[in-house]
Amino acid sequence: MEYVFELTMKVRDYECDLQGIVNNANYQHYIEHTRHEFLLTRGVSFADLHARGIDAVVARLQMAFKTPLRSGDSFVSRLAVRKEGLRIVFVQDIYRFPDNKPVIRSTVDTVCVVDGRLSACAELEKLLGL
Amino acid sequence: MEYVFELTMKVRDYECDLQGIVNNANYQHYIEHTRHEFLLTRGVSFADLHARGIDAVVARLQMAFKTPLRSGDSFVSRLAVRKEGLRIVFVQDIYRFPDNKPVIRSTVDTVCVVDGRLSACAELEKLLGL
Amino acid sequence: MEYVFELTMKVRDYECDLQGIVNNANYQHYIEHTRHEFLLTRGVSFADLHARGIDAVVARLQMAFKTPLRSGDSFVSRLAVRKEGLRIVFVQDIYRFPDNKPVIRSTVDTVCVVDGRLSACAELEKLLGL
Amino acid sequence: MEYVFELTMKVRDYECDLQGIVNNANYQHYIEHTRHEFLLTRGVSFADLHARGIDAVVARLQMAFKTPLRSGDSFVSRLAVRKEGLRIVFVQDIYRFPDNKPVIRSTVDTVCVVDGRLSACAELEKLLGL
Repeated sequence: MEYVFELTMKVRDYECDLQGIVNNANYQHYIEHTRHEFLLTRGVSFADLHARGIDAVVARLQMAFKTPLRSGDSFVSRLAVRKEGLRIVFVQDIYRFPDNKPVIRSTVDTVCVVDGRLSACAELEKLLGL
Repeated sequence: MEYVFELTMKVRDYECDLQGIVNNANYQHYIEHTRHEFLLTRGVSFADLHARGIDAVVARLQMAFKTPLRSGDSFVSRLAVRKEGLRIVFVQDIYRFPDNKPVIRSTVDTVCVVDGRLSACAELEKLLGL
Repeated sequence: MEYVFELTMKVRDYECDLQGIVNNANYQHYIEHTRHEFLLTRGVSFADLHARGIDAVVARLQMAFKTPLRSGDSFVSRLAVRKEGLRIVFVQDIYRFPDNKPVIRSTVDTVCVVDGRLSACAELEKLLGL
Repeated sequence: MEYVFELTMKVRDYECDLQGIVNNANYQHYIEHTRHEFLLTRGVSFADLHARGIDAVVARLQMAFKTPLRSGDSFVSRLAVRKEGLRIVFVQDIYRFPDNKPVIRSTVDTVCVVDGRLSACAELEKLLGL
């Protein structure tokens, strides 16, 4: 798969835990923020979707942790996307900047919940060109 | 002022930062959670309030940090409350358990925003007996 | 696999995001806290391990999200553990309390890094009886 | 006082809570990150300081909340700094971008703890030109 979006960020010290490395839960934050920023480039606001009764939610997540990020590190969060049945699947990998060392590799399966019911993401798929 | 509510919690390791102590922002989390649990004892759900268009928001916060909490520490979060004009003021102090050493002392001024406008918290005040 | 540990917790409102449900990253926090509390029952402090140059780190994580938790919900976080080669694998599931509805199912593969090098977790395995 | 540093950031959706606005604790994160980035421009790494046994810690915090930030908002975090006895005092204000509406005003008193003892921040003061 080909990455279609990337976002460069920098570790914030409060994201590091007592091991002196970024706490794992923050990688979920990083990749969620990357998805939402990607959606914005396609004209989709996560908050607006919610206000209109459409919630894109994560159904399944797989993450492999390769190299921990530390205080002072910058990184690039890259994203690819494909359709799989009802699901929109995001492949989201993070690389340390500038040496491009893999930090995490992840796959995020999302589904849509419309007015409380699991549903096709027709509108989202169209905007994403899937 | 007299404390009218207390909640015992334990530090979670992800709350500690690279200094090996609880990151300061988490004390705001602790005292927010304490306020909301206190409100529940008076029949007030923060989420329900929001759903009904009433948002209790913090207008001003003062915190003095006395002793940092560390991995493994338990603590007691105590709360007092009074009315000051339009504001509901919470005095919220945290003590390490079991030696009762002061961890933080804080004062939290809250106001109500009803349908987007600053407003008296009549309902809230009544339920809190202020 | 059989659960060998469980911890009951309650959603804190700051853990909910603009969709009104617990933000996914917090489930990583919940299961990390559960692992660390489990380790403590076996005499292992995560912070002490780190201070002695031994870091147990997550190599791989899989999570399936079943039912979102909301403000006011309580939940039980259950844990099973087994050895797989160099890895210690935790099966960690969360159930809503009291209706026992599945919230997440997860598998967490951990490895040990001793003085900066990937290593067998001999001491940890012994304490965990693996 | 005159601002000597500023950092532009954007709200990340996971920072918003069930009220649909940035949860207050995140403003502490924003201003901490701003201080640490400011220190880096003066050659001071917070993580390195800690590794050398010097911990700059917050002794007192005052925050006034003016306008809440929402999903999609960008903001500028501005910083001024002065010496007051043993303390280094940071005035840290956040403005919404681009309309410059005040979001928070805060004052952060920091002290140094060297090898576990409250101490003058001589080195830090020199680097900051105080």
